[in-house]
Amino acid sequence: MSTAELLICTTCRAAGTAKDAAPDGRRLFHAVQTRELPPGLHLRGIACLGVCSRSCSAALQAPGKFTYVFGDLPADADSAEQLLLVAAQHLRLDDGQLPWSDRPERLRRGVVARLVPALPFTSTPADAG
Amino acid sequence: MSTAELLICTTCRAAGTAKDAAPDGRRLFHAVQTRELPPGLHLRGIACLGVCSRSCSAALQAPGKFTYVFGDLPADADSAEQLLLVAAQHLRLDDGQLPWSDRPERLRRGVVARLVPALPFTSTPADAG
Repeated sequence: MSTAELLICTTCRAAGTAKDAAPDGRRLFHAVQTRELPPGLHLRGIACLGVCSRSCSAALQAPGKFTYVFGDLPADADSAEQLLLVAAQHLRLDDGQLPWSDRPERLRRGVVARLVPALPFTSTPADAG
Repeated sequence: MSTAELLICTTCRAAGTAKDAAPDGRRLFHAVQTRELPPGLHLRGIACLGVCSRSCSAALQAPGKFTYVFGDLPADADSAEQLLLVAAQHLRLDDGQLPWSDRPERLRRGVVARLVPALPFTSTPADAG
């Protein structure tokens, strides 16, 4: 079965969130956690994804597939649903490359980075892309 | 031997770069390519890393290690040297987690994202971090 990880930053705070309130990222994590996960998806809360200027943030990764990092996500049910939708797409696709047109709105404009699958390190040491 | 990939976006353009000029990212790629690479490092030019708002951009990845994405990099010799310095650190470290204090200045404030190593998918389906 295809597998992938959905990482959610649990320390992200949106601008204006009170310091004694739960971090927005933790609320987003719980919003995802309470939903049914697609088979093969492993959900992980991570203390910091380094996307502090574009909170809330999340990432999808799996060996041999494209990695995506998303930001600017409100900590609400819509973000949770959109993340699980693209996670299911990522699981289905052999290379995990998510077509722009098939992604929900927040995960189009919210792309922070997109990395190609890691090579098996059998080719020459420098490729021009 | 430890291996890792240094991905450099070859289509990144800094604000104000003329449309008929070579992309800044391609100049950064060539600045790295002309230097001696640490053993085990695989350099790849990638047409887009999705970090368009923080060009130039680059990333370090290797199976079982932390992934780093960097942005706001001028296309010059200093950026090339700093990228190769942290690439050598990433190769040496078992988990690839780069201490903030050991990183050159541009690769401290230029962090776009930092992802934990992918799990081998043997644990429970939801972990709180």
